[in-house]
Amino acid sequence: MYGAGDVRVIDVPDPVIQQPTDAIVRVVGSCICGSDLHPYHNLPVTPGGKTMGHEFVGVVEDLGRDVTTLREGDFVIAPFAWSDGTCDFCREDLQTSCRHGGFWNANGVDGGQAEAVRVPLADGTLVKVPGGEDPALLPSLLTLSDVYGTGYHAALKGGVSAKTSVTVIGDGAVGLLAVLAARQFGAERIVLMGRHKDRTDLGVEFGATDVVAERGDEGIAKVRDLTGGDGTHVVLEAVGHFPAYEQALGVVRPGGVISRVGVPQYDEAPIGFGTLFLPNITLTGGPAPARAYIERLLPGVLDGAVAPGKVFDRTVDFDGVADGYRAMDDREALKVLIRP
Amino acid sequence: MYGAGDVRVIDVPDPVIQQPTDAIVRVVGSCICGSDLHPYHNLPVTPGGKTMGHEFVGVVEDLGRDVTTLREGDFVIAPFAWSDGTCDFCREDLQTSCRHGGFWNANGVDGGQAEAVRVPLADGTLVKVPGGEDPALLPSLLTLSDVYGTGYHAALKGGVSAKTSVTVIGDGAVGLLAVLAARQFGAERIVLMGRHKDRTDLGVEFGATDVVAERGDEGIAKVRDLTGGDGTHVVLEAVGHFPAYEQALGVVRPGGVISRVGVPQYDEAPIGFGTLFLPNITLTGGPAPARAYIERLLPGVLDGAVAPGKVFDRTVDFDGVADGYRAMDDREALKVLIRP
Repeated sequence: MYGAGDVRVIDVPDPVIQQPTDAIVRVVGSCICGSDLHPYHNLPVTPGGKTMGHEFVGVVEDLGRDVTTLREGDFVIAPFAWSDGTCDFCREDLQTSCRHGGFWNANGVDGGQAEAVRVPLADGTLVKVPGGEDPALLPSLLTLSDVYGTGYHAALKGGVSAKTSVTVIGDGAVGLLAVLAARQFGAERIVLMGRHKDRTDLGVEFGATDVVAERGDEGIAKVRDLTGGDGTHVVLEAVGHFPAYEQALGVVRPGGVISRVGVPQYDEAPIGFGTLFLPNITLTGGPAPARAYIERLLPGVLDGAVAPGKVFDRTVDFDGVADGYRAMDDREALKVLIRP
Repeated sequence: MYGAGDVRVIDVPDPVIQQPTDAIVRVVGSCICGSDLHPYHNLPVTPGGKTMGHEFVGVVEDLGRDVTTLREGDFVIAPFAWSDGTCDFCREDLQTSCRHGGFWNANGVDGGQAEAVRVPLADGTLVKVPGGEDPALLPSLLTLSDVYGTGYHAALKGGVSAKTSVTVIGDGAVGLLAVLAARQFGAERIVLMGRHKDRTDLGVEFGATDVVAERGDEGIAKVRDLTGGDGTHVVLEAVGHFPAYEQALGVVRPGGVISRVGVPQYDEAPIGFGTLFLPNITLTGGPAPARAYIERLLPGVLDGAVAPGKVFDRTVDFDGVADGYRAMDDREALKVLIRP
């Protein structure tokens, strides 16, 4: 990406092993994330360009000499943060705070919207898929890089259970998979706030019991109507813009939890006496330690119990990537899969 | 209180039963709360005056005809919110959000800094002390009205356990009892941030392992030094002023919890990408459902396992109440007990 709206596919040298803990992965599937739309809107003109993409699955092509858990030819899933897997944060399943890890597209580590990627700390970062590559499962496996794990993180941190009612704010891929995860945690009442019918229809398929298309005060009133005036025990906020936070405050029940996984596009926000304190509301969430959830969620994907890959409604090759960004930005596509 | 700094003791008619669910309690002990200092600073001139006090223990003198669990002569503890004990919020131990309850000194319900108090919803609100009145135990029993339950709430919501390190911000009565509670939950490393040596000495007696007298960036650096650079898993914020929130952000470990029980004196605050989101920090807390904790904490008080009443370092009669406010405001007294 060379600036807002300026997406180009260029030829670069093939990545090579730089550290003995690296792997080179040939990308079989990657995708465009809702969060990629932020630089698509506001990246300053960048003459050298910026690599993109933090979600990919592929085949191990080369390995540094210190990598012990992978073999060439393994089909692997890469989470959206790379991590050593051994530090205290990783052992606590907070790989996004790994002491030696980092994020794609920064500090000399390029992104997943490419034919091949150098993966640092490959033993800690990559998860091998038993059974190898399966084209039918590829979209669902790819969601384990980020959006499924992120929806799951929202529900987990929110404390969703069979005893909690849930509101999900946002009908993007993360919001829809937060619905799926909330259902997996046993929630029986799941209100999905979103205004794109094709998307909320998929949300209903994933387990939403109610859909509220209205936003702002009108949307809040609607959710309160649906919940005897109280709001829901848990709110999963999968947007990141300030009005979504305000909406979360409006629909959360006293004693409840707001769990944010949409990357906040604001800094200051009300957290004082009337909003969070008096009603004992908990605010939680953050970037998902997707790495921690891949092994946990993989069996359900492999045996077909869940099909999170349904969030992909368009597939492009490299020639179609720029238009894929446009289509997601225009809300014409929900999530775009890239097959190199 | 008739305005900032204007505390008067006046004669008023004795309270009488108004509702069949009321009780009249003759106050044996009440006290001044750190939160009473907020109106002491900023109450506008109020010609009719405002009753004060939300912490008291005493003897039941009269009962409405619908009260079934109490008898005249019972020695009882009143929590700082009154509640029906039967609604869904009460059953979930969130009595501060009771559907029919409320707070003292509002809506025709007067406060505990008095000789007698009309207690609404007495069955739900009051807890009878087995064994009746015991002068030696009175200070500790009185802390169950608020400050001990509030410190306990901070630790409970913060998820304190034997596996978590803890920072307590504030050396007032709530902060010191948050230390005591954190110790009860098994925390082995408890850093107390406070700059009044007589108070932090009591904090050490209650279980603090380290005392940091510095504030702001210097205090943050000190706590980070003590914790290998990371901060602590849990931060119990028992002040309520904005700098205390900033301090909490500075000393909390990634993946950790900030649990607030100091009533926030600010509304907007940073909760964006860098502060709470990226490190997956949880923000929780609120007014303690003290009612829920009285029965839980009472045995330890009765058998002498804990002595939270040590936070009282001055006792006054009604003639001394105005000076008691002054002494607490001047940090000359930690917490003032009132014996009518």
